[in-house]
Amino acid sequence: MLKPNVETFLACDASYEESRIVLYGAPFDSTTSFRPGARFGPPAIRHESFGLETYSPYQDKDLEDCRIFDSGDMELCFGSSEQALADIEERASVILADGKLPLLLGGEHLVTLGAVRAAARQWPDLHIIHFDAHADLRDDYLGARLSHACVLRRCHDILGDGRIHQFCIRSGEREEFRFAWEHTDMHPFGFGGLEQVVDKLRKQNLPVYVTIDLDCLDPAAFPGTGTPEAGGVWFPALLRAIQLVSQTRVIGADVTELAPMLDASGASTALACKVVRELMLALYPLS
Amino acid sequence: MLKPNVETFLACDASYEESRIVLYGAPFDSTTSFRPGARFGPPAIRHESFGLETYSPYQDKDLEDCRIFDSGDMELCFGSSEQALADIEERASVILADGKLPLLLGGEHLVTLGAVRAAARQWPDLHIIHFDAHADLRDDYLGARLSHACVLRRCHDILGDGRIHQFCIRSGEREEFRFAWEHTDMHPFGFGGLEQVVDKLRKQNLPVYVTIDLDCLDPAAFPGTGTPEAGGVWFPALLRAIQLVSQTRVIGADVTELAPMLDASGASTALACKVVRELMLALYPLS
Amino acid sequence: MLKPNVETFLACDASYEESRIVLYGAPFDSTTSFRPGARFGPPAIRHESFGLETYSPYQDKDLEDCRIFDSGDMELCFGSSEQALADIEERASVILADGKLPLLLGGEHLVTLGAVRAAARQWPDLHIIHFDAHADLRDDYLGARLSHACVLRRCHDILGDGRIHQFCIRSGEREEFRFAWEHTDMHPFGFGGLEQVVDKLRKQNLPVYVTIDLDCLDPAAFPGTGTPEAGGVWFPALLRAIQLVSQTRVIGADVTELAPMLDASGASTALACKVVRELMLALYPLS
Amino acid sequence: MLKPNVETFLACDASYEESRIVLYGAPFDSTTSFRPGARFGPPAIRHESFGLETYSPYQDKDLEDCRIFDSGDMELCFGSSEQALADIEERASVILADGKLPLLLGGEHLVTLGAVRAAARQWPDLHIIHFDAHADLRDDYLGARLSHACVLRRCHDILGDGRIHQFCIRSGEREEFRFAWEHTDMHPFGFGGLEQVVDKLRKQNLPVYVTIDLDCLDPAAFPGTGTPEAGGVWFPALLRAIQLVSQTRVIGADVTELAPMLDASGASTALACKVVRELMLALYPLS
Amino acid sequence: MLKPNVETFLACDASYEESRIVLYGAPFDSTTSFRPGARFGPPAIRHESFGLETYSPYQDKDLEDCRIFDSGDMELCFGSSEQALADIEERASVILADGKLPLLLGGEHLVTLGAVRAAARQWPDLHIIHFDAHADLRDDYLGARLSHACVLRRCHDILGDGRIHQFCIRSGEREEFRFAWEHTDMHPFGFGGLEQVVDKLRKQNLPVYVTIDLDCLDPAAFPGTGTPEAGGVWFPALLRAIQLVSQTRVIGADVTELAPMLDASGASTALACKVVRELMLALYPLS
Amino acid sequence: MLKPNVETFLACDASYEESRIVLYGAPFDSTTSFRPGARFGPPAIRHESFGLETYSPYQDKDLEDCRIFDSGDMELCFGSSEQALADIEERASVILADGKLPLLLGGEHLVTLGAVRAAARQWPDLHIIHFDAHADLRDDYLGARLSHACVLRRCHDILGDGRIHQFCIRSGEREEFRFAWEHTDMHPFGFGGLEQVVDKLRKQNLPVYVTIDLDCLDPAAFPGTGTPEAGGVWFPALLRAIQLVSQTRVIGADVTELAPMLDASGASTALACKVVRELMLALYPLS
Repeated sequence: MLKPNVETFLACDASYEESRIVLYGAPFDSTTSFRPGARFGPPAIRHESFGLETYSPYQDKDLEDCRIFDSGDMELCFGSSEQALADIEERASVILADGKLPLLLGGEHLVTLGAVRAAARQWPDLHIIHFDAHADLRDDYLGARLSHACVLRRCHDILGDGRIHQFCIRSGEREEFRFAWEHTDMHPFGFGGLEQVVDKLRKQNLPVYVTIDLDCLDPAAFPGTGTPEAGGVWFPALLRAIQLVSQTRVIGADVTELAPMLDASGASTALACKVVRELMLALYPLS
Repeated sequence: MLKPNVETFLACDASYEESRIVLYGAPFDSTTSFRPGARFGPPAIRHESFGLETYSPYQDKDLEDCRIFDSGDMELCFGSSEQALADIEERASVILADGKLPLLLGGEHLVTLGAVRAAARQWPDLHIIHFDAHADLRDDYLGARLSHACVLRRCHDILGDGRIHQFCIRSGEREEFRFAWEHTDMHPFGFGGLEQVVDKLRKQNLPVYVTIDLDCLDPAAFPGTGTPEAGGVWFPALLRAIQLVSQTRVIGADVTELAPMLDASGASTALACKVVRELMLALYPLS
Repeated sequence: MLKPNVETFLACDASYEESRIVLYGAPFDSTTSFRPGARFGPPAIRHESFGLETYSPYQDKDLEDCRIFDSGDMELCFGSSEQALADIEERASVILADGKLPLLLGGEHLVTLGAVRAAARQWPDLHIIHFDAHADLRDDYLGARLSHACVLRRCHDILGDGRIHQFCIRSGEREEFRFAWEHTDMHPFGFGGLEQVVDKLRKQNLPVYVTIDLDCLDPAAFPGTGTPEAGGVWFPALLRAIQLVSQTRVIGADVTELAPMLDASGASTALACKVVRELMLALYPLS
Repeated sequence: MLKPNVETFLACDASYEESRIVLYGAPFDSTTSFRPGARFGPPAIRHESFGLETYSPYQDKDLEDCRIFDSGDMELCFGSSEQALADIEERASVILADGKLPLLLGGEHLVTLGAVRAAARQWPDLHIIHFDAHADLRDDYLGARLSHACVLRRCHDILGDGRIHQFCIRSGEREEFRFAWEHTDMHPFGFGGLEQVVDKLRKQNLPVYVTIDLDCLDPAAFPGTGTPEAGGVWFPALLRAIQLVSQTRVIGADVTELAPMLDASGASTALACKVVRELMLALYPLS
Repeated sequence: MLKPNVETFLACDASYEESRIVLYGAPFDSTTSFRPGARFGPPAIRHESFGLETYSPYQDKDLEDCRIFDSGDMELCFGSSEQALADIEERASVILADGKLPLLLGGEHLVTLGAVRAAARQWPDLHIIHFDAHADLRDDYLGARLSHACVLRRCHDILGDGRIHQFCIRSGEREEFRFAWEHTDMHPFGFGGLEQVVDKLRKQNLPVYVTIDLDCLDPAAFPGTGTPEAGGVWFPALLRAIQLVSQTRVIGADVTELAPMLDASGASTALACKVVRELMLALYPLS
Repeated sequence: MLKPNVETFLACDASYEESRIVLYGAPFDSTTSFRPGARFGPPAIRHESFGLETYSPYQDKDLEDCRIFDSGDMELCFGSSEQALADIEERASVILADGKLPLLLGGEHLVTLGAVRAAARQWPDLHIIHFDAHADLRDDYLGARLSHACVLRRCHDILGDGRIHQFCIRSGEREEFRFAWEHTDMHPFGFGGLEQVVDKLRKQNLPVYVTIDLDCLDPAAFPGTGTPEAGGVWFPALLRAIQLVSQTRVIGADVTELAPMLDASGASTALACKVVRELMLALYPLS
């Protein structure tokens, strides 16, 4: 008898019970101010992952050896950020409560806030490692406090000073940079300082949420994003950074801001898939 | 001495005071559920209008003979539909209060609600003539009552039964069609019945708001829109409909749902420009 | 507990057992000689179907009221047409044996041959109704006898003279047209003669396989196909033809030759989705 | 021994001596004011012609039965319209002097002037049949008198009143329409009046140059052109017009304004190829 | 009362009188021999600049603190290079005469010649610093001496030997490289030698015109240009070069050869915007 | 008298007899499993080569000084890999028998097998130098042993252990990497070890076939390929590798896997042209 058509990220076909990592997609981009399209990221990543191999020669690991579950995309309300964030928070909470690692596929960067709210409730001493071209530290954007441009500021509202470690940042208002110098641990332009941060977090065994805005990459490699910002990092550096970060106690993660229609060549989507694969392999088995 | 760079729709370079028609753009698409991009419509229409002539051989009229002012695009808050609608309503109210005809360039179709709110306050006996592929009569869409898919339902909340005249409709839930049979004056698939509607409105000299969702056109002619729906009307039919409608007492109008990035050939944008030109020429001088 | 991510065509979420129609995708285009890409048709149709409503105002029917199962896409061997056809034939045979109607989503037109082989084994008196821009009657194409350009000729090998009813044909070698005058029932350019054909088939209650090469449509409406051929039919005419054909005893059908990447606007994919919806609604419940 | 790589339009592989029709390409678009790209038209038409069959079911004729030579594209000087026109005129003169029909592939519409200069020298009583969306009757355009927007005006300078028969025109300055009413034989919007014009020219056996600006077609069918203008004709109407025109004594012809990069689907290029095929078949053998 | 729609590059909203830098656009590409489209560069840069922040973390400077005026795009005659250059020269002369720095947005590289003519008249000891993939030193190109491929050769005609300092050059005829070895100061492939050149020019306080053909960048980062040439420099290197150059007495500058339609992802346009922002911040206040 | 339209790669206009290198194109991609389109590579490379100069400043050599013949593209049977490979083998054999170097333009990577079969018959001690992102060492792919994913495995069937030198490999099944460690000489990720390999081959004067799958390049530089794989090499490194390899006794070569439609910017095609130019200049005159 014919079976229904189950679609997952490449090889993420474990049952929910046995899985250690759970993928969930948040196809949301309502607050994107410049060029929307990140809503199409999660299904594109899932679909195009089949152009990859399950095996990583970088890490000599294979997704075939991992138990990962892909729960598909959430149906989120366009036009109401608060409702969308509540739904994401609930999904993340369920996964965390079951002792699994939630891996969120965005969507615009605002979706991170839902997952961080869930994680911070469970781990009040949470730290965030943040890779991004943009500081995302505005207090509001055109009047909206729930905006992709404010998402790390909202995380700071929850976690307070010194808990957010930002890398690759190369764009922001002057005010955001000033805020960062006082309240976050910002490392502009690249990954300089990441080893020390990882060392410290690892030694204290602190819980870490990793949020990767893919526009940290150079637009040459990753043009398929709403706000391409020249001067970014390349894939090999991001890969090394992911491997470094995986030495900490990562309890949740996300990969955001692929807007696949903006790069018709498909190279951006393929790169996003590879980042997701390497991230899952690096985090697995959970520390 | 060099002058600043003023950009308007082709030949719409009258001063505000002397103008009879005022263009204003609402680059908003936050509630678009399928494919966003209508936010880029107004600047694209303004910019590409220079591929047109000012003269229409269809109407033997020339924009050079009209006094039209282009007030540019509003800066609207992405992620808050209510705030955006309030801003649009305010702009429309100002123009109406000055005795001019506001011509709104969308943006997604929800923006119409802001203009209709302003118009209905000034003319409680307002009628709406609505060209669209979609009924837009849902009571809510994924929980949101302010959604492009609900915009005519919200207008019905204000105006009540028998005031909304819908043409070209060929998509909707079964419930929307049932609602229409009872509460609106729906003419599915094409412009059948428009002459009679115009006759009646004209005889009673009723104030009319005209809302043109460009996806009433066939996607062959107008692929650059978020939800292309086969089986639409062609430009000559739309042109005749516009000329018909201009025989009524039109007090406001809009043209919505061009998503220019979705049609890289530029033909959709060029068609939208031509619709705007013909609409302005048909409405001018105001009846 | 979270559920796996099942993806189907819009509302085709019945179980296999209860279903009357079974969708199956054949993402194959190895013999495409001009521009490949039809392999991406089935997942694109499935994914983009969510831009449609389940309700058809044309037929006043709703997919919500139908029991249809979507079995997803087959994994076919690129580079071996014979193997791919054998796999398709087997899938079609299973569905036919279970008394359900197999509805195949191509893929290039060659995939039809697999389904027709299965159908002709079960119904030796099978007729084919064929909508296409191209005659597809070559005996071989650059040496290959299993080619999209030969598929109806291969069907003729099985069924013999007078069983293949071709409509909308406007391209072929002179030899193909000569073959058609002698061996098939060809109606060039449009749907002229379809009513008579349907009448005859209906009166004799003959089993009919319907194969729709979407390039029968005009490229203005459907540019997303490998070999666009000007002078085609429009959607309303195709819709009427589908409704006509559904009056016969249709036992199998297919919709082929969408190459979604060739029409970046998405209008071709949206049209293909609408054709599939209308075809399913027209055929349901099975006669 | 291996042969060099000769590339021609489909089946146009006669030797120059035996040929009756000679194709020549003018990849020039320097005066295009809106969107350039027509320079890429001739090689695209030549290359994509292999997606067509040599046989036309419309005319029941086959290119295999015709002796046509394709002389490839000229190397024209970008930035100097006068030099480019002189080169085109020389090429056309050579072909005309050899008693063959020159068929020019543009390029922007200005290239027609080179061919018309050559033709008018040989046939002082020349008439022009002109299919176009635009009147092209400006006396100058931004100061340039050699511009695509002035090309028929320059032809009028040579031929005088009543010799230019314009069809499908739906765009121009008011002045151009006024000029047309006095000096040319303009039939706006479609092919109305063409039969009468053909009748008259045929009875007097007057020499005719046919210039087809492909933007006479509706942009739905032909978006791949610099200035798409809604409200055009469809392929079947153009095909009938070509067959009509071929009843006159056509001594030269051109097909211009395909800008293939503007229509990534390839449908515009495919249509242009089909127009060229049907035009050659209609004109062959020369009357 | 509503104000007209003034459009400028991000934050370049000073009045002409108070401004120190004046932007002016030259949307011209008539001599482009390979792929046109640079004409669309200036409006694209202006429009997309709003995806940037006004603040540069690289230079810790903010456009909000600068007085810059954007005079919009000139209306240039397509098809007459000489007329277009005269118009550019006039605009540049006015700005120079008012003691302001003219910053030209191309357009193809030929537009530089207009600005250099104006600058060299005012500063006979002018030097040029030239970043480009192509030497642009041909004496003529297909017969035209006013061509993008000849622009630095024409500048050499004015300035003579040793005044033109070329960097990043990696394409040209053998003759151009030979000419360069004798007559210009060419540094192929990258920015090697730039520090020494800047040192020398700075010590002598010589007036410098900076011309940046954006195709000096690697096509991976900047595919949106007519003639992409692999092996270019990356944004960080260009940024450092701009900062270096700003140590000299720069009296005029340009940024040319963005063809935005060739990079549908928008990344090239975004990069061009960032180069313009960094260039303005580096040059401001004028030395 | 007008000449036929011969089209070749830039400056490859020698006669076959006098030529030392012979280009031949294999527009085949039937076994491509992910995204087809490599069939369009050879004509795109030939056509776009005219955007290059004939002179290379990297090697200070000029194509004008070389005698190279371009034999155009073969007409290969889609859907039958074995037949296509036989045709390629025959063409390569003819060229090799005439003492010339065959330079094959793909097409998908499988086409290499035809050329290697011909070369290995003439030089049983043949070595292969292989640049690629993918190991291509599967024994079969979805049942097919003649697949792009198996092509080097098939070459290994012919040549045996230690004869295949692989560079830049960063994707494959775990089994392929295991196979490589035992049977081929694999250097993952980059060109590390190439100098040593070249040294050894050069000292023994062994015949070498060079196969360049262009996806060895980073997708940032070369997105126009079916399976983009992040983390590749850049053009300058590939250029150096080509120059190194040319120190061995190269008897045949190929450049494969450009799928030009996947990179609408044209930058990938331009890069492929430059690789072909540099490869020909490096190999000429044959060692």
